[in-house]
Amino acid sequence: MRILRRTITFIFLTQSLLLSQSIYDSLATHIITESLQSNNAMQLLTELCTKIGHRISGSPQATKAVEWSKRVMESYAFDNVRTEPVTVPRWFRGNVERATLRVKGQAAIKLNITTLGGSVGTPKQGVSGMVVEILSWDQLKSYGDSAKGKIVFYNRPMERSRRNVFEAYGRAVDQRGRGAVEAAKYGAVGVIVRSMTTRLDDFPHTGGMGYAEGGQKIPAVAVSTNDAEKLSSLLKKHGSANTRVTLELSAQMMPDVESANVVGELRGTEFPDEVIVIGGHLDSWDIGQGAHDDGAGVVQAIEAIRILKALGLKPKRTIRAVSFMNEENGGRGGQAFADKDRGTEKTIAAIESDAGGFMPRGFGIADSNAFRKLKVFEPLFAQIGADRITFGGGGSDITPLARKGASLIGLTVDTQRYFESHHTNNDVLDRVNERELALGAACMAILSYVIAQEGL
Amino acid sequence: MRILRRTITFIFLTQSLLLSQSIYDSLATHIITESLQSNNAMQLLTELCTKIGHRISGSPQATKAVEWSKRVMESYAFDNVRTEPVTVPRWFRGNVERATLRVKGQAAIKLNITTLGGSVGTPKQGVSGMVVEILSWDQLKSYGDSAKGKIVFYNRPMERSRRNVFEAYGRAVDQRGRGAVEAAKYGAVGVIVRSMTTRLDDFPHTGGMGYAEGGQKIPAVAVSTNDAEKLSSLLKKHGSANTRVTLELSAQMMPDVESANVVGELRGTEFPDEVIVIGGHLDSWDIGQGAHDDGAGVVQAIEAIRILKALGLKPKRTIRAVSFMNEENGGRGGQAFADKDRGTEKTIAAIESDAGGFMPRGFGIADSNAFRKLKVFEPLFAQIGADRITFGGGGSDITPLARKGASLIGLTVDTQRYFESHHTNNDVLDRVNERELALGAACMAILSYVIAQEGL
Repeated sequence: MRILRRTITFIFLTQSLLLSQSIYDSLATHIITESLQSNNAMQLLTELCTKIGHRISGSPQATKAVEWSKRVMESYAFDNVRTEPVTVPRWFRGNVERATLRVKGQAAIKLNITTLGGSVGTPKQGVSGMVVEILSWDQLKSYGDSAKGKIVFYNRPMERSRRNVFEAYGRAVDQRGRGAVEAAKYGAVGVIVRSMTTRLDDFPHTGGMGYAEGGQKIPAVAVSTNDAEKLSSLLKKHGSANTRVTLELSAQMMPDVESANVVGELRGTEFPDEVIVIGGHLDSWDIGQGAHDDGAGVVQAIEAIRILKALGLKPKRTIRAVSFMNEENGGRGGQAFADKDRGTEKTIAAIESDAGGFMPRGFGIADSNAFRKLKVFEPLFAQIGADRITFGGGGSDITPLARKGASLIGLTVDTQRYFESHHTNNDVLDRVNERELALGAACMAILSYVIAQEGL
Repeated sequence: MRILRRTITFIFLTQSLLLSQSIYDSLATHIITESLQSNNAMQLLTELCTKIGHRISGSPQATKAVEWSKRVMESYAFDNVRTEPVTVPRWFRGNVERATLRVKGQAAIKLNITTLGGSVGTPKQGVSGMVVEILSWDQLKSYGDSAKGKIVFYNRPMERSRRNVFEAYGRAVDQRGRGAVEAAKYGAVGVIVRSMTTRLDDFPHTGGMGYAEGGQKIPAVAVSTNDAEKLSSLLKKHGSANTRVTLELSAQMMPDVESANVVGELRGTEFPDEVIVIGGHLDSWDIGQGAHDDGAGVVQAIEAIRILKALGLKPKRTIRAVSFMNEENGGRGGQAFADKDRGTEKTIAAIESDAGGFMPRGFGIADSNAFRKLKVFEPLFAQIGADRITFGGGGSDITPLARKGASLIGLTVDTQRYFESHHTNNDVLDRVNERELALGAACMAILSYVIAQEGL
């Protein structure tokens, strides 16, 4: 009996899904065509990257980016365009960052470095020490107090053999995140971390790092992988005792700054209080142009709603674009957005694009209910090969929305190129392909519209 | 009865396939790991692109590329490494190519052009004419003899709204291929073709064009899309009568040159006379570095065999890497390779990589038998998302092998970026991602090995 009822439900469900899919199929085609034809996502990204450029939280550029995002949403006549205040930390790199390598008896060498986000600066004369190369936490532990007065050089590479680059990243990025904390415990005076990329090149990759509450705050930089290799081989040849680095950094934390998330929407016709959030983060690191990370996501979310409006679509539920502030060094925008009291409203789903403006492959969905419900819509994305709806996913800005009952969804893209540019001077417009960017925007438009019509 | 027997056969087949798949599964992982870890494909491509550079058929660089490919195969101890002679055409651009636009009463403008491959040159003083913009063959026909003495400007864009870029290419490239033939019929003195890309940028795209037997040979160039737009708007504003272009081109056809395909293999242990060809083309156009087109395919084929050897794999059938000569302007290498008498040998399959060194997505297979047989191996490629084995495909160098009974297979890749670089100065190493390139090589190694073990 139970089985029979399930079967009938299944057949019924399948039929109604088939029906709705055929409607959505032609809609998906229209959305994709409009996105490619208008090339609007790329035009927006060009404005953001070239007129404003990088835009770390609390910076004047971040303020400009907030104004820009609001102006763009208004120009497309989104509903209820507004900023929502967020207090953000402000870390300031300043204009001095220098790592000078001195091997006994040789000319000094400047290393290709970038200060890690959140690092303290150094005294004007810099911080100097013998360099010790560390490949594991165990090795650091056994080295112990011998690290006193030295500069710890974390050189465990992101493994290039891993097919999943984010897995490789996850297995190496602990060096960046807690390298200074661990090194300080043994009295080290500074930290150099091998950049997070599987490539050998000259771009140092910045990124977030932290200090222990009450612990010693020592300066931390990332070195390009080519220079990490060079430093390592010089250490092997000449020994730690003969290999010194001086770090001169002007970085500092400044007082918190008032900033904002930018919000605009396409109001639902039947259930306006049920909301689908789509977004990316407006802040970036303070080098490059923040093109892939995450200008792409910001413009894709805005573009998704622009497309739906351009096609005259009127969703039953509200679709809300959010340009989140402060993903990179605090996550306060995502937090503030989720914390805000929205009365009777319920955010049923949140879709984030924050893996770069690369070729979309599908979506990753964090909860099994939404996953099951949306999996059947994979065929809508088949015409562009983006039809992989997988279990597990989300995005860091939308994570706090899970508490409020939202299903978290991440746009998944081809990520093999991600660490060419991630957090570097290489994260520029020229590395983004306008067609791939547009197709990602189309995917977000299609999925958000389907959820707006079908509910979750 | 018939159904029963089919079912039993199906079950049997399925079981043995499942068994063999599980063996191949771990093999696929090893192959992918080796390809990513060694990064060897990128090292080879770097050599080819930076030490030799572009290498049009018959050029000194093409000769160097032949020597290089042979040397590389020998250095990896491939079996039976040799060159096989091919007589190739030699088209020479020379060092003059200039298109000067003069609008009455305004300063002259240099257009961003490139001579089309195969075009004749102009007299030293150039060829001048009023410009007429043509958007369709019908329009040219109705314009008819009014084209006499003029320069025909074909400006029908590659449609950016098409999700399949090769389809967009196919619908526009007739202008490049037979634009000069058609314009000459009406007495035009030269041809300017809008570049084959959906982007608006400053890179003119060269490519092959032809003349009619016995027809007038008029010079032909491609203009960058940005300059095509500019020219079009000037024509609208000032009229054809006030808009003249002078083409000065030093291009010429030279006598044929002796060149070669390069061949090396991993000899089969059980059925060495059954051969799987894998390859790409060694020649390129004479601008850029021929990185995606088709340095990528050449190094992927070589790398595929290197990986199989590095893992100690001994295929039952012979896997043969071929660096084909003269794909771009003649196809004589592919022809010569297929024409050669190989005695008792039978080429059962041929896999070409000639869609750029982008993220692999799967394979396209031209015949239904091989398609059905290989479709079941899709799961082997799932770990990198390259598990789409589709019906239809191949490659222009391997097409002549179909006559000999070979199943034609093309490596399919993400193509959205292809026309950023295709046949331009932008087709350089820096536009190739080493991980995507390596994954393509791994796919070719996996599929060729499976065919070598399973037959077709």
